[in-house]
Amino acid sequence: MTLVNGIQTDTLPVSDRGLHYGDGVFETIAIKQKQAQFLVSHLDRLKRGCTSLLIPLPDMDMLKSEITSLTETVADKAVLKIIITRGSGGRGYRPEAKSHGTRILSLHPWGEHIAVYQEQGIQLMLCKTHLAHNPQLAGFKHLNRLEQVIASAELTDDFQEGIMQDADGAIIEGTMSNIFIVTDNKTVKTPRLDQCGIQGIMRHKLLKWLENNNFNVGQTNIGLSDLLQAHSILMSNSIIGLWPVKLFKTKQETRHYPLPGFVEDFNKYLDTAR
Amino acid sequence: MTLVNGIQTDTLPVSDRGLHYGDGVFETIAIKQKQAQFLVSHLDRLKRGCTSLLIPLPDMDMLKSEITSLTETVADKAVLKIIITRGSGGRGYRPEAKSHGTRILSLHPWGEHIAVYQEQGIQLMLCKTHLAHNPQLAGFKHLNRLEQVIASAELTDDFQEGIMQDADGAIIEGTMSNIFIVTDNKTVKTPRLDQCGIQGIMRHKLLKWLENNNFNVGQTNIGLSDLLQAHSILMSNSIIGLWPVKLFKTKQETRHYPLPGFVEDFNKYLDTAR
Repeated sequence: MTLVNGIQTDTLPVSDRGLHYGDGVFETIAIKQKQAQFLVSHLDRLKRGCTSLLIPLPDMDMLKSEITSLTETVADKAVLKIIITRGSGGRGYRPEAKSHGTRILSLHPWGEHIAVYQEQGIQLMLCKTHLAHNPQLAGFKHLNRLEQVIASAELTDDFQEGIMQDADGAIIEGTMSNIFIVTDNKTVKTPRLDQCGIQGIMRHKLLKWLENNNFNVGQTNIGLSDLLQAHSILMSNSIIGLWPVKLFKTKQETRHYPLPGFVEDFNKYLDTAR
Repeated sequence: MTLVNGIQTDTLPVSDRGLHYGDGVFETIAIKQKQAQFLVSHLDRLKRGCTSLLIPLPDMDMLKSEITSLTETVADKAVLKIIITRGSGGRGYRPEAKSHGTRILSLHPWGEHIAVYQEQGIQLMLCKTHLAHNPQLAGFKHLNRLEQVIASAELTDDFQEGIMQDADGAIIEGTMSNIFIVTDNKTVKTPRLDQCGIQGIMRHKLLKWLENNNFNVGQTNIGLSDLLQAHSILMSNSIIGLWPVKLFKTKQETRHYPLPGFVEDFNKYLDTAR
């Protein structure tokens, strides 16, 4: 089911700037027990993205009521995707001073594989595709995602996720998830994301949960050798929660990792967290 | 008038990856006397872009016949935009092995301002928005154009174009055009575009025309001081042809430039070139 500006439809005007320039932002939100998980955080990031791109904010009451109308139709779990574009209009790249944005809300099925990989762990590979430094576009989820698309195209069927570096070789994130390395029993590190990468909502929730559970957590520079020497590796996003990594493969090396004990605790916490 | 996969319509499936990820390429082509100008070069770049993104090539005979059906409806001049996306489908970023692309062809009015600025020259400003280095995506016209959108949003009404630098301060291009500097009567330089920027068809045609007319031409590193010290500055793209710059403004300086004599000759050549 899809709503475009509140109307149930499967089509969009072909003139929309979301298509022509990727001129918009999006959020992907877990729906559990008829509620959008961490909705306040998602809408905050959506607003930050609109502000960064100078896209007029959608009417938040209207957006929330549309979200409710969709989540109420979900029997168990589902994925809600929200896209806000600048809408149609403007001559060429230059946006019109007063643009009327487009709101697109769509529901997608919850994948059975999510829980399986939470328990069994995933296989991770190193992608050749790099993330470019672009501090103006870093952090939020805009619609310019070709780097992630071409990195994902590198994944063979044995691998559920791929790791992306910046041009300096710093580890930034997975194609669709943030990365965490556990260096010892009580220390977890994740890359700094000031030059590129997405500030994941789940990344933020995990960092807070770890702090509350007396872990030492740090946002720092992480290189390939840190991954290869880590005690364990974890990947997070709003839909998968936390996936432990059982294997990481570079061109030269393949390493196996144990699944850290706290993954189960965190994923259990997610079942009820809102 | 718009054709989507050959059918006249103004809408697109909301599931198209062109919208979700900017997963596609485009060309903007001048239509003059019922013919698409430099069509072979445009279709070559379109194919190069599809190949870089692993998007299946559209059926070229079908595409050409659709182009003809549109250009035949044009009385005088018009702009033809062709978008090829990867179409719908694929789970998340990862493209499906066999995707069916979407072809979108649309006609847009020719701007009266184009000839005016060819004769009178334009005012150019320096944008704060930078172009990120991304050699994998450099050169061709993909749908990830947020850098150009936010740079264009910097332009005030007095300025027809803005100049973009990379993070190292190298001059790369305008928001919608390539840049050339004339250093003396017979020498024209334009930035190297191996790390970012678009290899414009008109840029290529101008470089060839200059060579044929015994100019010294070079693709090189160009800095801000080169612009400020240039004899004259020119901007090119497939629609505007060649616009001379009469004024260039940075935060610190404003410089005026004479309009070089060969601009009129080149734009006249364009009137009949196919």
